Order: sequence, then structure tokens, then C-alpha cells
Amino acid sequence: MHLTDLTMAKRVQIELGDRSYPIHIGAGLLAQTELLTSALAGQQVLVVTNDAVAPLYLKPVLDALDTLDTHSLILPDGEQHKDLGHWSAILDSLIGMGAQRDVTLVALGGGVVGDITGFAAASYMRGVDFVQIPTTLLAQVDAAVGGKTAVNHAKGKNLIGAFHQPCSVIIDTNTLSTLPEREFKAGLAEVIKYGLIGNADFFEWLLTNRAALLNHDADALIHAIEQSCREKAAVVAADEREGGVRALLNLGHTFGHAIETASGYGELLHGEAVAIGTCLAADLSATLGQISVADANRIIQTMASFELPVQVPATLDASDLIQLMTLDKKNRAGQVRLILLEAIGRARVQIAPDDHVLRDVIERRSTDHTKE
Amino acid sequence: MHLTDLTMAKRVQIELGDRSYPIHIGAGLLAQTELLTSALAGQQVLVVTNDAVAPLYLKPVLDALDTLDTHSLILPDGEQHKDLGHWSAILDSLIGMGAQRDVTLVALGGGVVGDITGFAAASYMRGVDFVQIPTTLLAQVDAAVGGKTAVNHAKGKNLIGAFHQPCSVIIDTNTLSTLPEREFKAGLAEVIKYGLIGNADFFEWLLTNRAALLNHDADALIHAIEQSCREKAAVVAADEREGGVRALLNLGHTFGHAIETASGYGELLHGEAVAIGTCLAADLSATLGQISVADANRIIQTMASFELPVQVPATLDASDLIQLMTLDKKNRAGQVRLILLEAIGRARVQIAPDDHVLRDVIERRSTDHTKE
Repeated sequence: MHLTDLTMAKRVQIELGDRSYPIHIGAGLLAQTELLTSALAGQQVLVVTNDAVAPLYLKPVLDALDTLDTHSLILPDGEQHKDLGHWSAILDSLIGMGAQRDVTLVALGGGVVGDITGFAAASYMRGVDFVQIPTTLLAQVDAAVGGKTAVNHAKGKNLIGAFHQPCSVIIDTNTLSTLPEREFKAGLAEVIKYGLIGNADFFEWLLTNRAALLNHDADALIHAIEQSCREKAAVVAADEREGGVRALLNLGHTFGHAIETASGYGELLHGEAVAIGTCLAADLSATLGQISVADANRIIQTMASFELPVQVPATLDASDLIQLMTLDKKNRAGQVRLILLEAIGRARVQIAPDDHVLRDVIERRSTDHTKE
Repeated sequence: MHLTDLTMAKRVQIELGDRSYPIHIGAGLLAQTELLTSALAGQQVLVVTNDAVAPLYLKPVLDALDTLDTHSLILPDGEQHKDLGHWSAILDSLIGMGAQRDVTLVALGGGVVGDITGFAAASYMRGVDFVQIPTTLLAQVDAAVGGKTAVNHAKGKNLIGAFHQPCSVIIDTNTLSTLPEREFKAGLAEVIKYGLIGNADFFEWLLTNRAALLNHDADALIHAIEQSCREKAAVVAADEREGGVRALLNLGHTFGHAIETASGYGELLHGEAVAIGTCLAADLSATLGQISVADANRIIQTMASFELPVQVPATLDASDLIQLMTLDKKNRAGQVRLILLEAIGRARVQIAPDDHVLRDVIERRSTDHTKE
């Protein structure tokens, strides 16, 4: 543990009454074992991770827990394994170790590990504690905040799950050094999203610090993650169960989920699909006259400058995407609801326009019909 | 609908902030279709029932919903089917009908249907509405109140589940006319439990009205169900997620679950196992000097007078039962916790005594060693 690491470490408190919890953010936090052990209510721990993360970070976590009744489960890596079968395997592990109600699950990995482990924690004995140690940028700024847990169904992403808050989140930015560059950049799409929906200054800060972020500068990363967590925390605290403003966090996601599903899970990274979806939302917002065409182009150019995809893959059909959007969880009474922009830094939920307007925008932003 | 039915109908409000909901209790309420339709937020409904209840009550419920987008799913009857496979079948039905977040599930049946449907409602899209129409006495006084949902695992009952409150509960006491007598009496064990844990007057009322209850007198039934719901509601409102007093509702259940598991699901009815477990708890409370032997005998004689079993089946081994009790969800830090009596009408949570004390009580109350 270096003194400089300590100096940089940040703490964001998520205020949710008796379900409040801290997010610790810093370089080298995995070595601060008391951050983890102080979050445990009992003696039993199950660490769930995947076969990509285990060789890198499982040992230090198990070492930190070596005086306790600690077990581990290594799942296969990949969104396609975030299913009921692997969720059930976590429950079987808990039952196999005779886990009681004071057991703590530790989710060590990306959003998939966090989501599936969180849903297992939500379901075992009607809810036990879990700690998140997110090791991808996407999980650090999105999946680890807000208590959404889920598994996928063949018919749609995250269709089965629960709201269940972690008791602590430990973000060690050093883990990003082993993250594939493509995944790192995909995580930046969610960071940019936070600026777009609620904080124009943060959006400007991201543009100014683009090079530092792409170079993995620790200070820049910690600030970007802290600010993203704060933006999300503010929204979640106001609307824990997505009755209202929480839906704004889904900017780019209705389009994005449809693009992910239509491509087949695993083709595009979630953040990449969200980047494309955000560009579609920006374009549609301009088409409807809610923001200027100049602002829409600025958003699209920002995504591109962070080396993110900004166009719908040519293999996808606009009608298929629109059909998939009708199954989105935000919908009410059969109407598709979208998050669109009123300005850079301000978003709102609204009913989707006629299908032909959606189709025009999707086709304009597909690879074969680029206008840029 | 008869005017006399209306006169007798009762309403108990469960106060849980924004998750508050009403319980309607009366004879003939299934014919009052507006009770059901007024509880629905959207147009989509999935009625889940079982193959014993469907021939009796599915048609009137579907008729009440015939202007809506209503689907139904009939599960096999029995506790042994309260598993992840059938829970997953409910989720598949929801996905198959394209259910959106404003779908409502209706659980029409006993505790098994209520628990598994409730857990499906808790898990689909991270939580959708559900209405309970309990058709067994046990479900009417227990499973329909308090928001506990679950499925069983081969290693233990209710190990997987969630807390999820219904948006309305409709109890039509006429449905008890088609309930097998054995199941009806098993439900009375839970009714007696409410008197024992919190209301000595209600316990006395039950003794006084034993004949009316065993004869299915409508007024007596409505009062017993209403009073049971009120007792449970008071406890649940004070402790929604079982941090403290809610555990008192489990009087007789730690012993009872172990007896159920050891016998194999389906041998004993849940209420029968609870009756035996309550007798064990009474005997142990007297053994520890917390209540008089006379009170313990009075409790055991009351259970017997309602034609409920009061002895541990001779096929079960005391050591096996004690072993099974160690997996109970109420335990903390490896210690078995039991609900025992301080008086008729007052219970408390306490650490179990030494195994040899437990074993003595279990063996004293097993069929081969009856002392009565």
C-alpha cells in the first residue's frame, strides 16, 4: 500500500436509508484488506468470480479472507453465461457450504459477475449480504451502483432479477490495467452518458481530459469514476425502484439493448451498444427539434473521439430493432418509452415517435448509410 | 352476491408505507369481480393456479378478467412442485405473453401457488404486481400475509425466494368448502399459533368456538381469519424483513420444518408439522421452566382437540431432526435459534439449549414414547 494511493482514495456514500452503503474508489484498494473484512456481518463468505478474473485477482481476495469460512466459485466468463443455470450454481454452492443468513457473497469481476451474484444474494434465504469488487470500468461506474441485479433470458436481457443493494463496493482502479482496451473504452461510453443526462460540466471535463483517460491516468480515472458514481447515486437515491427519474440512466439503452439482442450476445460489448444507442438518441432528439443538430453531432463526435462505435451494424434491420424495443422494461401499456435529450446535461423520458421516424433515424445511422 | 355476504365481509389493511395493501375477507368474494379488477395496474394478467384448484375456481376468475389480456398457467398440485423448474415455467409464460412491467400475476390456490407465483412476480423484470387469492385456510392466515415468497431446494424448504408484497389479497371463505378436511384442520394449527404468540384472548376464543370452527361456520371462520391476519399484520408491520419480532411467527416452525424435511415433502401437511412443532416448543418451554407444565399440556390438548397430530412420527430420529434444524434460516453464527413461550399469548426468540435437552424433548414427544 502506497501513501500516494491513500491520498487519492475517494469514498461515495449511497444514501438509501437502512440500505445505505459506501463505494470506495482508489488505486491499490485490493491490498487494503480491512475494507473488505469490515464489510462482513458473519464468518461465512462465498467469493464468486469468473475464469478471466480469477487468475489475476482471486488469490489476494482469498488471502484477505483466510481467517474466515471462505469458499469460492469460478464461473465461465461472458454475458452468455449470465443465465438461470449459473445463478442456480451459485445457490447450490451456498447450500453446499451450509450458508446461513449471515453469509456474505463477494462479486469479484465485471457486470456479469456482479449482476448474477447480486441476484443470488437477493434470492438466497430471501436476501443475504453481498460486496461488489468490480474489475471493469463499466461495472465500476454502472453495475456496482444502484442495486439492480439480474440474469438474462433467451428472449431478452435482464428479464429476471431483483433490486438488492450491496453492503459495500470496493473499486480498485489498478484492476483496469489488466482490462482489454476495447472493454475499457466501452466503459467510457457509460461515463459520457452521466455527463449527458445530468452534468454538462462533467461532459466538458471529459472532453478536456480525454487523453489522460485514454492513457489510464490514475487521478483522471478516479475522478471520472467518482463523478459517475455520484451522478448515479443522486438519481438512485431519488428513485430507488425506477418509478421516475431513474429511467434517465437508460439513455441509449433501449436502442442499445435491441442492438445487443439483434447482434447476438457477445458480438458487441454492452458499452459499445450503449454508445451507438446514445448516438441514435442524440440524432432522434435533434430530429424531433429538442436539441440542435450541432449538439447531436458534438455528442456523436465525442463518442467517436473516445474510439467508440457510433453506427448501427449494417447486418441489423431497423424493423427488427423496433420490434425488440417493444419488449423493453420501461414500456407502459404497450407504448415504447425512450430517454431523449433536452440539452447536453439534461434528459427526459418520453413516448417514442411513430415507427417511421424511428426507422429513418436508425437507417440514417446504420453503417451503409452514413451521413458523416 | 348475497347481501348477507356483504354484511360479513371484513377488510384488514397491511400498513407497509408505499407497499401497503388490503386483505378482503368474506363469504362469496370471488363473485365480486371489482375487488379483483380494481387491483390491476395494467391490461396484462397471468393467473397461476394448480390442477386441483383450476376445475373449481379458475373459470370464475377468468370470467372476471375477460375484457383484459388474460392468460393462465396450471401447475401440478403439491409442495414437491414448489421448485425452481416450475418457477421458471411461470417466467417463461410471462415472457411468452410479452408481459410488460405493468403485468399483474394472480396466485389462485394454496400456499404453494402463492409462494411460487409471488417469487416469480418478485423476479420478473425485478418485480411486478401480484394479487393473492388464497383458497386454503393455511394460505389465508399465513402465506397470503407478509410478503414472503419462495421455492424449495432439495436441501431445505424455502431456501430460495424474496420478500415481495402483494398489491391485494382476496379471501373467499366459501373456497374452504371444497378443501379436504385434513388440510382445513392443518390450517387451524397456524390460527392457534397466533393466539399462542401474541393474544391469549384469541386463544381462549378459539377454544370456546372450536365446534363452530370445525363445522365451518362462516362467521366463526371470518373472525378467525381476520384475527389471524391482524395478528400477523401487526408483527409484519413492525418488522417487515424479519430482523426481530417477525421471527415469533415461526413458533413451531424450526421443529416443524425439520420434521417435514425428514419425513419427505408430502408425508405431513405443513400445518400438521407446525402442530407437532408447537407441541415440542411448548414441552421445551416447560422443560426450561418458562411456562408451567399445566400450560404446556393445555396447548398440546388444544391441538389434539382440533384433531391435529401432537407427536413426532416414530420413523424419525431425534439426531437427524437436530441436524436439520442447524440449517434453519433464523440461525446466526452457527447457533440454532428457537421460538419458545413465556406464557400462553407471549413468545420470544432464544438460543436453543444443549442438544441433549432437545433430544430428550423430541424423544419424549415421539409416538413410541408417549407420556400422555
